[in-house]
Amino acid sequence: MDKPLTFHAGTARQMVEAVAAGTPPMAVAEDMIARVQQVEPAVNAFAFFDADRLRAEADALPDGPLKGVTVAVKDVLLTRDMPTAHNSARYAGSQPGIDAACVDTLRSAGALIAGKARTTEFASTTVGPGTTNPHDAARTPGGSSSGSAASVAAGMTALALGTQTGGSTIRPASFCGVFGMKPTWNAISREGSKMYSATCDTVGLYARAASDLELLADVFGFDGCDVPDSLAGLRIGISYGTTPEAADADSRAAMENGAGVLLALGAEVFDLTLPEAFDGILESHRVVLAREGASAFLNEVRATPDLGAFFSDMVAAPPTAIEARAAYRQADLCRGLLDDLFEGGLDLILAPSATGVAPEGIGTGDPTYNSMWTLMQVPVVNVPMYRTAAGLPVGVSLIGRRYEDRRVIRAASLLMPEAVAPVG
Amino acid sequence: MDKPLTFHAGTARQMVEAVAAGTPPMAVAEDMIARVQQVEPAVNAFAFFDADRLRAEADALPDGPLKGVTVAVKDVLLTRDMPTAHNSARYAGSQPGIDAACVDTLRSAGALIAGKARTTEFASTTVGPGTTNPHDAARTPGGSSSGSAASVAAGMTALALGTQTGGSTIRPASFCGVFGMKPTWNAISREGSKMYSATCDTVGLYARAASDLELLADVFGFDGCDVPDSLAGLRIGISYGTTPEAADADSRAAMENGAGVLLALGAEVFDLTLPEAFDGILESHRVVLAREGASAFLNEVRATPDLGAFFSDMVAAPPTAIEARAAYRQADLCRGLLDDLFEGGLDLILAPSATGVAPEGIGTGDPTYNSMWTLMQVPVVNVPMYRTAAGLPVGVSLIGRRYEDRRVIRAASLLMPEAVAPVG
Repeated sequence: MDKPLTFHAGTARQMVEAVAAGTPPMAVAEDMIARVQQVEPAVNAFAFFDADRLRAEADALPDGPLKGVTVAVKDVLLTRDMPTAHNSARYAGSQPGIDAACVDTLRSAGALIAGKARTTEFASTTVGPGTTNPHDAARTPGGSSSGSAASVAAGMTALALGTQTGGSTIRPASFCGVFGMKPTWNAISREGSKMYSATCDTVGLYARAASDLELLADVFGFDGCDVPDSLAGLRIGISYGTTPEAADADSRAAMENGAGVLLALGAEVFDLTLPEAFDGILESHRVVLAREGASAFLNEVRATPDLGAFFSDMVAAPPTAIEARAAYRQADLCRGLLDDLFEGGLDLILAPSATGVAPEGIGTGDPTYNSMWTLMQVPVVNVPMYRTAAGLPVGVSLIGRRYEDRRVIRAASLLMPEAVAPVG
Repeated sequence: MDKPLTFHAGTARQMVEAVAAGTPPMAVAEDMIARVQQVEPAVNAFAFFDADRLRAEADALPDGPLKGVTVAVKDVLLTRDMPTAHNSARYAGSQPGIDAACVDTLRSAGALIAGKARTTEFASTTVGPGTTNPHDAARTPGGSSSGSAASVAAGMTALALGTQTGGSTIRPASFCGVFGMKPTWNAISREGSKMYSATCDTVGLYARAASDLELLADVFGFDGCDVPDSLAGLRIGISYGTTPEAADADSRAAMENGAGVLLALGAEVFDLTLPEAFDGILESHRVVLAREGASAFLNEVRATPDLGAFFSDMVAAPPTAIEARAAYRQADLCRGLLDDLFEGGLDLILAPSATGVAPEGIGTGDPTYNSMWTLMQVPVVNVPMYRTAAGLPVGVSLIGRRYEDRRVIRAASLLMPEAVAPVG
């Protein structure tokens, strides 16, 4: 090589173009290995990373639309050739030999599956897995997709897979200053992802450019829909959901910045009033997770008597059937009412991605601005367009109608066309 | 041994009692092995059965409420020590080394996981896997849980796990003359079960006695609810759903027999009129499956270009977003209306389990009387109380309110207290 390769500073699309132009995927792999050696000691994003395995994989990639693009995979998603430990003692070293459906699809597209990204235990607890925020090692990268967001933010991989049941993809994207996407529920199969809530579990995506999310939308076959060429004239409702008081000054500043840019680009921006039926929706999210988690973790609690109280308490005392029926009914009703709002002329929603910047310590942060949209099963993209005076990222969420994932991605791309530079 | 053991003729509860009284689980295993040698050549229920593996397992069972009870596991549910082939070429011999959550829970309870039961490809197609109906080898056992139902009907195992997305548990139970249960959606975790439809996929149960379903309800931690001591005074609505014309004379005779016994036991039986909102609900079931199947099988179609047209067509041309939103909305609405019916004094529904007896040939039969209840996510038990003059079974379904699985099981037990004898 005549000059040092710096794929880590580029986007997935740039990697695809380089490989198409003749750069061997091995060069991408070597660049990633060098970047990992440089930043991983401080970031600690990976639960499993093996340079030799990566080289072997780079040497045998099929042709496809993501050929040579590095992707970190959250360690609750099965990978046939790497352990999947879920950050839980029972699964240390477990390597089932099959891929999660989303990983399988990426492999068929030629992606370079780079390693397993750290997660909270079973993507469920609120205790961080030891990954630090690339912007400030004293702060959490958020969770549960801690390693996925940090890997992309630090430029170790171009893309990453996460999951979201409450705010586990969008909130880390906000804290780490990268694009993050929670697609429409079930737009990407969740097979081979550890279950928590069948109603809310969603495979999530990370990238440093909105246009890279379009690449992924193609690979995963997201629905076609009208996508705008411009934000001019789009009707965009501002919503703090049912908890306007939760946003701190930084979160509000990010929202005001986002609304200002939208206005400057010609969008019609207004305060969105949610129907009264949404009152208490966060409690319904809690009930759905507690019910579904009690089923999901029953086998783990039975097989692992010393599993933490988070899990054993959930299995021992789920919400009642009456509470569950009411929670599902509210969720179902509100999903329909949200469809009606979009049907009635609303194009997109702008909402906070987090209550503020990444907190210090090992907690994974507050999901209050994410959980409702997860329960609504609508597509959400975190746009990392704002930084505080101290340089810390705070994102905003663009939210669309069910199955209009491509519309949300395009709007994010129009709102912030430039890629985020890797940190460090 | 002084006398021949015949556990295969008994129930799970009898096996539990025998083991508790000192019978070694190995004796149960040897009895099963002998029974398999006797009937499996004709029935062909198992995709994988290894007598030596079974003996080794019987020798090392943990104590638990199902200690020594034989359970066949549908071959779309992962098993750590046996292959899981999904009846699909890509997975021939695949053995991921982890258990589906439901299998894991049964193992912790001491169950003897007996073998892998044959299924249609990915529990999705309508082409039978070569299993025959124990009542008539020229007829289908139904599907997709073909081997599970046949194993229990033929007395090879006391219990079996199936799955249901349309009618894949209840219809084979009807055709094979055994108790079958589709619990409330997500009452049993579907982790480690091949995905087709996240909204409809449900782990199913087979037994030859209703009281054995109570054992399983305990192990899986089904909700507590009011359970009746008698059927007297219960209000039971008869429903042929939206397709009254689909039931043939045998199916109607089974329904009349069931209604007659309910009346004789003091129940109040009446024709249930479903709200108009249910019109077209079977089409919504079709749309939900086609949409969710397009996500679920994307990776398989990409990785296996010669996978059948059933799968490649589903991935290539899913229903539109508009159709999908309408289908989900109807399902959500009807689920609430059904709750209202139960809230308003309806105790249970009696419905056909199938359009008639098991058809001849390799097709798996018509799910028209199962799909709606699957989409409604309510608990359903097939009660195998009726046989035609030719001796072929036709079941009826008892259906209850979400989370009231134990009420439905108890009602089935009161309607048909006796166990079914193994066939052959």
